[in-house]
Amino acid sequence: MLIRILGAAAGGGFPQWNCGCPNCGGLRRGTVRAKPRSQVTIALSGDADRWVLLNCGPEIRAQIESFPALWPRAARHSPIAAIALTCGDLDHTLGLLSLRENHPLTVLATETVRQGFVDGNALYRTLERFPGQVTWRRFVAGLETPLDDPDPARAALFATPVPVPGKPPVHLEGRVPPNDEQAIGLVVRDRPGRRLAAFPGAGGITAAMRAAIAGADALIFDGTFWSEDELARPKLMDKRAADMAHLPIGGPDGSLALLADLAVTRKLFVHINNTNPILREDSAERARVEAAGWTVAEDGMEIAL
Amino acid sequence: MLIRILGAAAGGGFPQWNCGCPNCGGLRRGTVRAKPRSQVTIALSGDADRWVLLNCGPEIRAQIESFPALWPRAARHSPIAAIALTCGDLDHTLGLLSLRENHPLTVLATETVRQGFVDGNALYRTLERFPGQVTWRRFVAGLETPLDDPDPARAALFATPVPVPGKPPVHLEGRVPPNDEQAIGLVVRDRPGRRLAAFPGAGGITAAMRAAIAGADALIFDGTFWSEDELARPKLMDKRAADMAHLPIGGPDGSLALLADLAVTRKLFVHINNTNPILREDSAERARVEAAGWTVAEDGMEIAL
Repeated sequence: MLIRILGAAAGGGFPQWNCGCPNCGGLRRGTVRAKPRSQVTIALSGDADRWVLLNCGPEIRAQIESFPALWPRAARHSPIAAIALTCGDLDHTLGLLSLRENHPLTVLATETVRQGFVDGNALYRTLERFPGQVTWRRFVAGLETPLDDPDPARAALFATPVPVPGKPPVHLEGRVPPNDEQAIGLVVRDRPGRRLAAFPGAGGITAAMRAAIAGADALIFDGTFWSEDELARPKLMDKRAADMAHLPIGGPDGSLALLADLAVTRKLFVHINNTNPILREDSAERARVEAAGWTVAEDGMEIAL
Repeated sequence: MLIRILGAAAGGGFPQWNCGCPNCGGLRRGTVRAKPRSQVTIALSGDADRWVLLNCGPEIRAQIESFPALWPRAARHSPIAAIALTCGDLDHTLGLLSLRENHPLTVLATETVRQGFVDGNALYRTLERFPGQVTWRRFVAGLETPLDDPDPARAALFATPVPVPGKPPVHLEGRVPPNDEQAIGLVVRDRPGRRLAAFPGAGGITAAMRAAIAGADALIFDGTFWSEDELARPKLMDKRAADMAHLPIGGPDGSLALLADLAVTRKLFVHINNTNPILREDSAERARVEAAGWTVAEDGMEIAL
């Protein structure tokens, strides 16, 4: 299985357009040791031929161009066989509207995430210009489904959705009842049985998540915030990490501590917010995650399982 | 007046994600003389301090980062004082949803364009998270309005909308009656009286447009297609330029011929489609537009009037 990080940042990217925080300002001035990152999208392939996008951020066009394996091989073509959504947040989904150039798309999502993007979204009609422009395939918790081809006999990648503690996307907050399909992780396996546990967004860690992660060949996990009050303390935003359904990395109840006992060969934090100190390559927090065997994902990073 | 081309391409950009046409494929392989371009957004300033975005394409985040004058100057700040929309097409507007990080925005548009983006668009709620997140100001044909400050005494730039032959955006085709507010150009002036005529999209040239363009210090004009059948001939799409409300550049009825008699100091084609031969720096068509005094806009190009 090939894993390519097309974008490793949380919503807004790094740096964020309206943010002059020490990380963003320092990156622009060249005074902090850090690399820019675009919003989270990950490409997966089981056969080095057909590719699956794990989510589809607003910067998808530049991300596709950054990776030759995703370039078209004919006058009208794309090696992107499917797009798998783990939630309905715009930083994970808005790029779908940038893939509107008259091309058939296959999108996998829970029914809740599909409805959240399609229902009452007039802009979505740009993806309804011809019959079959978008084929939605349904993710159901616990049911394995082929990813890169609907026919299991032809697919090279398969995914089993795992519900994660989440919340509706901002544009649906207070408008839809909470359910366990708002956000999922995916256990992706290839034919030889290698296994990626992908949880790019997670508001907590359940027993089912721990079972999915234990023994995986690779783990991709929500690295949005280091601490609960990362936005509130510098008065950037009046919300805690928990309000935004992101389990912080640090602290006694953070992901670093809660996942420490699980054996996983490769562990990557993705969806990293511009304020997170792990972005600074010489920070104490960066040293701590690396000492614990984690990698802070960067745009362009590739892993072969 | 300062004019910075943040993106010069039409919808889909150059190269386009699913396109392996001679231009796109050649650019990727390095076998044609051409430069990549992101989707059309232009920054204007009358005082080198406050900036106005002329449209807001999907790649706005990278475009802002590409131009230090648009970087924040405090922990939460943006020098972008306003965003002026000339139509509702997603390649001109989708970037608004990428400016959702809790920041007050001022957007100028005709009532038709505002409705086309806001009405029935559930995603837009991400820009309604606090009172005053977006302040809409109205463009009315023929009425000059200050751009970078609602108070004319404090503004450095002023714009007069001019209706252009257009059509509703794809997501509203067949759903809204045609009217002369679907697409506009803007005559932008600064305090010393320098004048930019900006028509990034135009399905034809009216007498009012000619009057707006004549004698301008700079003209920005729709350079989407060279010919009417640029998409249909290679069977990329079953539409003519006219169907998409873009006057082609070439031919006896093209913009090159129709605008030849108007005196304008600087003339730029923008919104250039990936199929347009003027993208190739050694093409006969490129030579023709340059011989006629036109510049083919590129990302990063700057003009001071």
